[in-house]
Amino acid sequence: MKAVLVVLDGLGDRRCRSLNWMTPLQAARSPFLDRLAAMGETGLIDVVAPGLPNGSDTGHLALLGYDPFKWYTGRGPFEALGAGLTLTDTDVAFRCNFATVSADGAVLDRRAGRISSEESRVLAEAIPPMHFDGVEIIFKHTVEHRGVLIMRGDGLSHKVSNVDPHGRETKVLKPKPLDESTEANRTAQLLQQYLEKTRQILENHPVNLKRKQNGLPPANYILTRGAGRLPNLPSFREKYGLSAAVVAGGALYKGVCRAAGFEVVNVEGATGTVNTNLNNKAAAVVESLKRHDFVLLHIKATDTLSHDKKPRDKAEMIRKIDAVLEKMYESLPPDTHIAVTGDHSTPSEIGDHRGDPVPVLIYGPQVRGDDVKYFDEISCAKGGIGRIRGTDLMTIIANYVGALELFGE
Amino acid sequence: MKAVLVVLDGLGDRRCRSLNWMTPLQAARSPFLDRLAAMGETGLIDVVAPGLPNGSDTGHLALLGYDPFKWYTGRGPFEALGAGLTLTDTDVAFRCNFATVSADGAVLDRRAGRISSEESRVLAEAIPPMHFDGVEIIFKHTVEHRGVLIMRGDGLSHKVSNVDPHGRETKVLKPKPLDESTEANRTAQLLQQYLEKTRQILENHPVNLKRKQNGLPPANYILTRGAGRLPNLPSFREKYGLSAAVVAGGALYKGVCRAAGFEVVNVEGATGTVNTNLNNKAAAVVESLKRHDFVLLHIKATDTLSHDKKPRDKAEMIRKIDAVLEKMYESLPPDTHIAVTGDHSTPSEIGDHRGDPVPVLIYGPQVRGDDVKYFDEISCAKGGIGRIRGTDLMTIIANYVGALELFGE
Repeated sequence: MKAVLVVLDGLGDRRCRSLNWMTPLQAARSPFLDRLAAMGETGLIDVVAPGLPNGSDTGHLALLGYDPFKWYTGRGPFEALGAGLTLTDTDVAFRCNFATVSADGAVLDRRAGRISSEESRVLAEAIPPMHFDGVEIIFKHTVEHRGVLIMRGDGLSHKVSNVDPHGRETKVLKPKPLDESTEANRTAQLLQQYLEKTRQILENHPVNLKRKQNGLPPANYILTRGAGRLPNLPSFREKYGLSAAVVAGGALYKGVCRAAGFEVVNVEGATGTVNTNLNNKAAAVVESLKRHDFVLLHIKATDTLSHDKKPRDKAEMIRKIDAVLEKMYESLPPDTHIAVTGDHSTPSEIGDHRGDPVPVLIYGPQVRGDDVKYFDEISCAKGGIGRIRGTDLMTIIANYVGALELFGE
Repeated sequence: MKAVLVVLDGLGDRRCRSLNWMTPLQAARSPFLDRLAAMGETGLIDVVAPGLPNGSDTGHLALLGYDPFKWYTGRGPFEALGAGLTLTDTDVAFRCNFATVSADGAVLDRRAGRISSEESRVLAEAIPPMHFDGVEIIFKHTVEHRGVLIMRGDGLSHKVSNVDPHGRETKVLKPKPLDESTEANRTAQLLQQYLEKTRQILENHPVNLKRKQNGLPPANYILTRGAGRLPNLPSFREKYGLSAAVVAGGALYKGVCRAAGFEVVNVEGATGTVNTNLNNKAAAVVESLKRHDFVLLHIKATDTLSHDKKPRDKAEMIRKIDAVLEKMYESLPPDTHIAVTGDHSTPSEIGDHRGDPVPVLIYGPQVRGDDVKYFDEISCAKGGIGRIRGTDLMTIIANYVGALELFGE
């Protein structure tokens, strides 16, 4: 038997004034998800810990069964892995943005006017791998204004602060060591040298000169954040006896799954945005499950609309996803188990992550079932699964599939 | 946004024969608490661990988010802190009672006939700080027959047994080392020397001579118990991003909160007894919340009536508290979150702590809500919070207030 886990990013929500004090899931009243909830079993998941707001990185680690308190150091290495880079376990990796920074260090636009992928790619080609004191520093552009940075060499540390002020400060920050070690101090210093050097390259690059001529903000600085090291995760197959694939748009989700040994399925039109091609992703799930025991399908749009504070659009998106999932499910072998949940709550009247638990449903022939009829935050609180931790979910799914080894005799 | 946590000591109970097989909370049917439960969300808390009976000390540590298995060594240091003493992290602190002990060591009255605060204070003034082998030993009287003792110096251990037989033995016990260390052995020996010395001082003190003349039991011995060291707790503000104050009568509650970095608000008439001035305490909560993000209100009376095996009086007291809380709540800013729970269960037909979970409710504008209409042990078992641990409560409250940092990105 096989299983599909659908993660709707930022799915959990609160009652919204603009939805007559319903949550977006309640307002959506999706016929397929409600049917799965009615036939299957439901519950709530504290993805990382009760009440603790978590990111998508720690959330996905937890949902795959890896305790983020044990394994997580920063988001950088998962972004790098998701962008197709290969990391050693001593590399320090960062997420980056191309940004517009003034001569005196003011961050004028932390996305360089949302510079296009095309222009960013040309700029990135002008930045060669560089060496500072025996450390190689590599920049790779991913999509739009985004990229990843890797520092490779001996004597480095991931305990380095963010350069990206992320809206809290107006000035670009200097990378600072986050502990007392000589490694952290050295890493911060080398990174600063690198950022100054790339700034010179970017400032006078023809792409930026042309942007300035056209009144567009130049992409003249690389803002780094999320320094981390790739954890040496025990493989997902080893943990759960399941060969696995992931269907996702965003690099992060591919990266976390790659770190766990998943096959990363690239899908045309899977953009990780609201305009992603859901039908292509659903078709990829059906295809991938022919080769694997387990497929994770990640859909970002629910979180994006939550951050944009659009509860009504979130509900509408859930209904749209519901229809695609129904069609997908009809194409799967009839004994396939399906689970649906989120990686964290993003209350859409707040527009930011919160630590409220997320609803979960599991349906399949081996599931006991419960009395819950609807898939939403309030109904699922009464479900047969009860209130579990994110790290428990995969064991429960793998159990239904019959993939787990006995502990004891 | 701000929050108030109301801890009704020993709140959890069992069905009582004398209450038509209802629990005191069910029998009370408090209109305000029931309204909060109906509008908010409810659940059960295993304060320390499922089924494990816990004290008020470990219970309050857990409710504030400090795992007592990690941080707790004994009650002494919290009593000392609550009595206004300052402790170093190497001091060993004890709770004490003035007691009446016969010439051959029989404990005739472990509270010395509940000697008054006035007489006790005079006796305590006759006991100077003493030095034994480089260790300073300090006694401080608190209320009625109670006090605290501090041993200060190098080479001490808190692994020392109770001198107070606490009703289980008739003879006063000798302090014994609880492990094999030379420190524990030395601490026990020095304490014994101190107790002999103070006995001589107390025996012939005019206060005691007069008590004997009047046929009252003399306070001629100091019974120690609850040896412990002050744990170096990470501050509550650091953990939850909340500045905090406590409104409580008893020294223990003030002490635990002081150890976590709370402001201790002293309230006239807050006695920690059944006759405490609830209105003054409620007013102090309203005032304190103007200066702080979070206030803990502790009310002891529910536990006292449980120990006295008075379920009917406990229900009556809950109704009385309910009215005071309603008035208090009306004076708080309308977006204040309020949580109500207990620090342990004290079934009032047993008269002692038991490990049954305690009910909890949380109400406020950010709370999802559930179907539960009443605040009692049975109704709350069906609530949206489910069954959580004591150490999870504050994270859940801080999440609703929006005070927590994201874990991950």
